[in-house]
Amino acid sequence: MSESASDEPRNAEDQVIGVADSIVELRTEDGDGARAHQLNLTKPPGSLGQLESLGVQLAAIAGTSVPPLAEPGAIAVFAGDHGVHAEGVSPWPQEVTAQMVLNFCAGGAAINVIGRANDNKLVVVNAGVAIPLPDHQLLRNTPIRQGTANLRLEPAMSRAEAAEAIMLGIETANELVSSGARCLMTGDMGIGNTTPSAAIIAAVTGQDPRQITGRGTGIDDATLDLKTKVIQDALVRLSETDCQSGDGLGLLSEIGGLEIGAIAGLCLGGASLRVPVILDGVISVAGALLAQQIQPAVVDYLVAGHRSVEPAATAALAHLELEPILEMDLRLGEGSGAGLAYPIVRTAARIMVEMATFESASIDSNDG
Amino acid sequence: MSESASDEPRNAEDQVIGVADSIVELRTEDGDGARAHQLNLTKPPGSLGQLESLGVQLAAIAGTSVPPLAEPGAIAVFAGDHGVHAEGVSPWPQEVTAQMVLNFCAGGAAINVIGRANDNKLVVVNAGVAIPLPDHQLLRNTPIRQGTANLRLEPAMSRAEAAEAIMLGIETANELVSSGARCLMTGDMGIGNTTPSAAIIAAVTGQDPRQITGRGTGIDDATLDLKTKVIQDALVRLSETDCQSGDGLGLLSEIGGLEIGAIAGLCLGGASLRVPVILDGVISVAGALLAQQIQPAVVDYLVAGHRSVEPAATAALAHLELEPILEMDLRLGEGSGAGLAYPIVRTAARIMVEMATFESASIDSNDG
Repeated sequence: MSESASDEPRNAEDQVIGVADSIVELRTEDGDGARAHQLNLTKPPGSLGQLESLGVQLAAIAGTSVPPLAEPGAIAVFAGDHGVHAEGVSPWPQEVTAQMVLNFCAGGAAINVIGRANDNKLVVVNAGVAIPLPDHQLLRNTPIRQGTANLRLEPAMSRAEAAEAIMLGIETANELVSSGARCLMTGDMGIGNTTPSAAIIAAVTGQDPRQITGRGTGIDDATLDLKTKVIQDALVRLSETDCQSGDGLGLLSEIGGLEIGAIAGLCLGGASLRVPVILDGVISVAGALLAQQIQPAVVDYLVAGHRSVEPAATAALAHLELEPILEMDLRLGEGSGAGLAYPIVRTAARIMVEMATFESASIDSNDG
Repeated sequence: MSESASDEPRNAEDQVIGVADSIVELRTEDGDGARAHQLNLTKPPGSLGQLESLGVQLAAIAGTSVPPLAEPGAIAVFAGDHGVHAEGVSPWPQEVTAQMVLNFCAGGAAINVIGRANDNKLVVVNAGVAIPLPDHQLLRNTPIRQGTANLRLEPAMSRAEAAEAIMLGIETANELVSSGARCLMTGDMGIGNTTPSAAIIAAVTGQDPRQITGRGTGIDDATLDLKTKVIQDALVRLSETDCQSGDGLGLLSEIGGLEIGAIAGLCLGGASLRVPVILDGVISVAGALLAQQIQPAVVDYLVAGHRSVEPAATAALAHLELEPILEMDLRLGEGSGAGLAYPIVRTAARIMVEMATFESASIDSNDG
């Protein structure tokens, strides 16, 4: 905090630290009551596998033996543009970010369909799209800035803007939970945003960019080589700044992006409110890594919705020690993998709430 | 068909063959229209991974470019007992099969919770529980016989009974689809039924029982050794009968069980009606192998809901060439893995029906 010079940034950064400090680390024994309850349910112990561990996590998050229902769920899709697009790291025109935001508002994108299928609320947040967007009832239209600077050449944003991006996510979490959401999902839209995500993941995990840089929405070999080189250059530049290891805000400031910072904020905000947050793919796990740098305990509140095809996602999940629910070769973003995993999370809670016990159903256990 | 001697069996077997013959094999080009439609949707090509291939399969099943909604779904849980229980292959008392049927009817089991979470209809079918069951509105109470004979020592049932078990599943499919179901799910309940399932899978795939016999709902090393030996003995006995390779009815008759035969019937029935069938775990994939023996084209209509912990399930899925949707270390049965996968199948259809195209949403494709 002492590093910020102006008044404005100090304020947002203090707010972020305040929320991060309010997050309660969960202990293994916080799941004991839920584990005991699971043993009484009419099924062989452990037979629901990952659904049972999810149920225990949901209970521990709420501080109860039987978790509250994780319903309704809400998906927040954060949109932002990236100065690094100028390097040619994506085959898509940058305008597609804004066009897709309009598509989200019109209800025609994949995440709209996925969200509707499970009765989830969807909000779209303009965290930093390069061009001005028209207002819409689904859109929180408060960009921090119009796209980031080019991470290969200079800091993507100021430290103050980084704190504001995170606060945008925290405020989104607060509003969604205030309006009734009991499970949050992260989503992203930003042409070129697998580049900063891979750079963040390489910086935090220490993995070689050549190992974890992926093809994003689909690039050829030459573009993959270029993208890898851009990330390598960014990491060299990062090493020459005074950003220390473990400084999530500093890392976000150097690499970006605005939507990735907001996703980190959604994670921190959800955790501070003791509401589970389901992560989408590589952009979201990069955001989760930033959140973890700011407050390690945030991970206790996170559920990995899926394992993205992007190799950086696997590196990040390993670092977060999260086992994804789905592995369906998804690489769309938007929150699609989080939204597809949601009905499974919802059911994990319902199992704990609704299933009969051996005693109530008069069923012999295999001890009998 | 010429092998059946009495009148009764010939009738049921003829019916099974009639339904099997009505199943239309799908060709790769039956998915071409759906694949073309996918390319127009507002997402990078292929970015929804397995969700896209599911959408293509659903369209091909219906014979359309855009599939019908896979809603509502219906879960059929087939219950049966097994003479092989006398060998001590399960730690659970046989009475638990009947007790769990009552639990299904009362709405307290895992599959009830999972089904309700996704608005699925649930029917329970008494295919052959060892003790008489009281009637209930959710229960189709028409057992073929009260449990099978001990597969280690003798045929589990007659060939006529095997055909009747399959017809029970076919009739269940007919009724569910008549009452509006547009996606079927298989489920099972039968203490001891991982033993016949592993035996069927070993017989069809040629895998060594020592490699594929699993711990079911949870058995110790000594019981696992016993269970493996029982399966080995059954396979030796099978090899001494006149049951030929590829004779699904003969294999069902020798090994059982009644609920496994009914699951095979649900697969055949769904396929004959061009409705997708989501398979649950090891019991269901054993049933699917029986169905495949009777009509190889049935596999085109099947979706593997999940990969069970049981090693035999993986052998069967490989033989069926099906890639499961979920891998959550489930080993409960009841249809739990099929029910958990259902919202993903439902969403795969909705994506095709509801998503905007690049043109309709005025979005640049990356060719532009």
